[in-house]
Amino acid sequence: MSDQTKEAKEALSRRALLRMIGNAAGSSAMYGAMTSMGLAQESGFKGPPKLGKSRSGDSVLVLGAGIAGMVAAMELRDAGYKVTVLEYNNRPGGRNWSLYGGDTYTELGGAVQKIQFDKGQYFNPGPWRLPHHHYGILHYVNRLNVAVEPFTQVNYNAFVHSTDAYGGKPKRFREVLADFQGHTAELLAKCTKTAALDGTITKEDREMLAEAMRDWGALDADMKYVKGRASSRRRGPVRAEGGGIDSLPIYSQPDALNQVLKSGLWRNIAGGQGFESQTPIFQPKGGMGMIGKAFGAQLGNMIQYNAKVIDIRQDEKGVTATYVDAQKGGAPRKVSAQWCVCTIPATILSQIPMNVGGKMKTAINQLSYSASIKVGIQMKRRFWEQDDHIFGGMSYTNQANRQIGYPQWDYFSKGKGVLLAAYTFDKEAYHAASKAPEQRIQDALDAGEKIHPGQYKKNYECGVAVAWHRVPWTLGCGGRWTEEGREAHYNNLCALDGRIVLAGEHASRLAEWQEGSVTSSLDAIIRLHKRAMSA
Amino acid sequence: MSDQTKEAKEALSRRALLRMIGNAAGSSAMYGAMTSMGLAQESGFKGPPKLGKSRSGDSVLVLGAGIAGMVAAMELRDAGYKVTVLEYNNRPGGRNWSLYGGDTYTELGGAVQKIQFDKGQYFNPGPWRLPHHHYGILHYVNRLNVAVEPFTQVNYNAFVHSTDAYGGKPKRFREVLADFQGHTAELLAKCTKTAALDGTITKEDREMLAEAMRDWGALDADMKYVKGRASSRRRGPVRAEGGGIDSLPIYSQPDALNQVLKSGLWRNIAGGQGFESQTPIFQPKGGMGMIGKAFGAQLGNMIQYNAKVIDIRQDEKGVTATYVDAQKGGAPRKVSAQWCVCTIPATILSQIPMNVGGKMKTAINQLSYSASIKVGIQMKRRFWEQDDHIFGGMSYTNQANRQIGYPQWDYFSKGKGVLLAAYTFDKEAYHAASKAPEQRIQDALDAGEKIHPGQYKKNYECGVAVAWHRVPWTLGCGGRWTEEGREAHYNNLCALDGRIVLAGEHASRLAEWQEGSVTSSLDAIIRLHKRAMSA
Repeated sequence: MSDQTKEAKEALSRRALLRMIGNAAGSSAMYGAMTSMGLAQESGFKGPPKLGKSRSGDSVLVLGAGIAGMVAAMELRDAGYKVTVLEYNNRPGGRNWSLYGGDTYTELGGAVQKIQFDKGQYFNPGPWRLPHHHYGILHYVNRLNVAVEPFTQVNYNAFVHSTDAYGGKPKRFREVLADFQGHTAELLAKCTKTAALDGTITKEDREMLAEAMRDWGALDADMKYVKGRASSRRRGPVRAEGGGIDSLPIYSQPDALNQVLKSGLWRNIAGGQGFESQTPIFQPKGGMGMIGKAFGAQLGNMIQYNAKVIDIRQDEKGVTATYVDAQKGGAPRKVSAQWCVCTIPATILSQIPMNVGGKMKTAINQLSYSASIKVGIQMKRRFWEQDDHIFGGMSYTNQANRQIGYPQWDYFSKGKGVLLAAYTFDKEAYHAASKAPEQRIQDALDAGEKIHPGQYKKNYECGVAVAWHRVPWTLGCGGRWTEEGREAHYNNLCALDGRIVLAGEHASRLAEWQEGSVTSSLDAIIRLHKRAMSA
Repeated sequence: MSDQTKEAKEALSRRALLRMIGNAAGSSAMYGAMTSMGLAQESGFKGPPKLGKSRSGDSVLVLGAGIAGMVAAMELRDAGYKVTVLEYNNRPGGRNWSLYGGDTYTELGGAVQKIQFDKGQYFNPGPWRLPHHHYGILHYVNRLNVAVEPFTQVNYNAFVHSTDAYGGKPKRFREVLADFQGHTAELLAKCTKTAALDGTITKEDREMLAEAMRDWGALDADMKYVKGRASSRRRGPVRAEGGGIDSLPIYSQPDALNQVLKSGLWRNIAGGQGFESQTPIFQPKGGMGMIGKAFGAQLGNMIQYNAKVIDIRQDEKGVTATYVDAQKGGAPRKVSAQWCVCTIPATILSQIPMNVGGKMKTAINQLSYSASIKVGIQMKRRFWEQDDHIFGGMSYTNQANRQIGYPQWDYFSKGKGVLLAAYTFDKEAYHAASKAPEQRIQDALDAGEKIHPGQYKKNYECGVAVAWHRVPWTLGCGGRWTEEGREAHYNNLCALDGRIVLAGEHASRLAEWQEGSVTSSLDAIIRLHKRAMSA
């Protein structure tokens, strides 16, 4: 028995034990047990599925060669099913997608963008990060030997910027973080000396709290957050310590709390603490699309590319999909199998005739997809590294482009680099998408010029702007569930309908993440396999 | 004129302008001007030195082939000096040092350690990080084409541990950070509703502050830090959201503020905010020692290895060093030059006869060096990745080993890995160093077992323990200046004495960092060159 198999078996038996404890003594006891067993923070990924062997000759039709579809295809193939995959695009991956020089992308409405990046440069219009606890997608990344490298989410030396604060000049992340934390620590330390916390915490705890605030806020001996060594060790000095003679540091002057609050820039400092943004994060070397490519290589000619599905029909024996060639059109063709895993986004699926029950139909039709836009631009020179000393990570702004993401590879390279020049959702994304791609790029350049004045436009070479609700094969970035929608329709979306089961990030509670696609796909095929075996 | 030259000239003229402003209007005006010019947070590194050409035939003797010595040798060579370097060890780099399988290390007292790491594994007993703003060392890293990769300082999923808290069970970094920040945010938000802050901040600011606390602390609608989606998005859930049916997250229960305070674990959460620990940080691929090796390759036979300096003597014409073969002994040899850059650590230098003035002598003799110990151990299996989902970064503990550093390369590798199993200073380091190397390793294993129970000792293969004050050629980790010592002796240490100038991290205000060595060295040779040209 391999180590991996053994581990999975152990995990399974631990899970069985926990379920027993949960049933017998309630969730609090179960949590206690999980903590003792070191299982707290278990992922939604329950390990690779142990489907066992399918019945000889059983077949599955998978619609869509995105992450969900290809996970399903690979696992079902491994279980012995005969698998056929239909994919609209001429490549595997779906939203797992990187754009390279020579690629062409045509959006809804016909605007064509020819990517002119240099060799070695790329842009991820879709997902770009692999959080360390997204065990599902990472399982496949490793199974497929996709090389990864660290991704920097928070860069203390990157900028946070508001057109309404500090005369529109960008601040460094570290300055805003240090000043916010320092001032608030000073205030709370002060409160421990007043009656404000009486009855809330004990006197002993108040003293410990004050001591903790000194450490946390970089306060001085008098519990003040002021210009000096302590604060400059956090916010950065004007000039750092050097060597030899004339090497004294010059400390920097913290901004007043009032300024920090009014600037609104504090809104940008907790982002890196969100569960999906916590260190470490990874990215595939060479682009997120390397995962899709590796899946595609695994599945080979199981995938029929350029297949635009126009009808899905099931009866008591199987499922038949009708499709046309997405590029050349021509006569419709049909492919049938006993079962079907459909990963077509709900936006598209709602337009395809499919004989499923009213509950699933309603669930598909009610789901909105988020609008999102990403702009990638190639710069002649890595001025953000060479002039601004920003290596990876992101700058944030209140402008419509919202953020600038710096390339996270070839640091210190004397060559070019591709910036993520805009990444926005909702209103800003709708605005941007109403314009021609060239104008979206121009807008992103105007915004970037405020953050890297004098260099941004000067070094611009070429770019691409992907507005996700104009992407013909998704019409949106991902499923944007409302709380009410989830309550009423989520289980109906996920439940097997006859011989058809849906999967994808939209059929998960981790929408718009590849991990949602993987966990959704695995849950779907486990249930499908069970039904197939008992049919 | 190359871009680099142009940039340096601009920087110089900006600096000249700033000096004028500073002289005329004081440091506050100068700071304002620096900020306007985007120069705030300038490094102690003032750019590569522009020495110009030396006088034909001028020569320099460099003592020590560590970073400071080799920077001096390379720059002086480039300026046309005839340079000779004497180095005690049989390799370049000094404390810039990585240990690989096959290496042997003998400490003071004679204990020999033969390193048995597998190929591809290594350990840095000395420096291990390159902060992004250490522009000096990074300049040489890039000049010498040393490949770098990101280094993770803070790992939210690593452990913080105290034998006195939570029954000795490790907590995840993210749990402690989130709970500390959440509870303190709740407290401060509460204080904004009381009179405690009256007179300190305005009513309007209080409201903004409360709103900021909600965001910062992941508070709920009632401004409470409680179990739920918001807090679990920071501290991590018991089970994350998944896909398909039965995919609801299970939220985790925050620890009470009292527990968090009492645990003392909050002491470990602000470390990553220190200026040298801020993201991004880099490390050379394959070990820190790659920098020393690259310097050594550049300097070639300018370096005389195995040269133990036993006497340094200057007169009105030049400087003569007497040395013996460090391995074979034998007859003393002499080498002379017009000038001397001496980078021998003060601990060693204080034992070598050298005719400098009393001020420099006193400065050398008064300087203490820090005690520090690092233990590196090779593990059969990367259980911290495979079982605990820790990829890079560090775990912290109140035990004598203080921290565990996880290897920051070959993530997800199915092979082995070398852990930093102990990294301590001062008292703990003295304790550890008083024991045999094998016992230091054993102690580190005992401590690690508390943090990774069941796996740590089981997977141990081999290790090495370097106690820096027992390293024959440094007798300490680095210069540990007191405030009074700096005041009285620092400038005397750095000032030219006749034809001799000292350099190294100990002759910098950034002691124990390679950046201190570089900036010290550059400052020293600029002054030496000036004197040489006017001699």
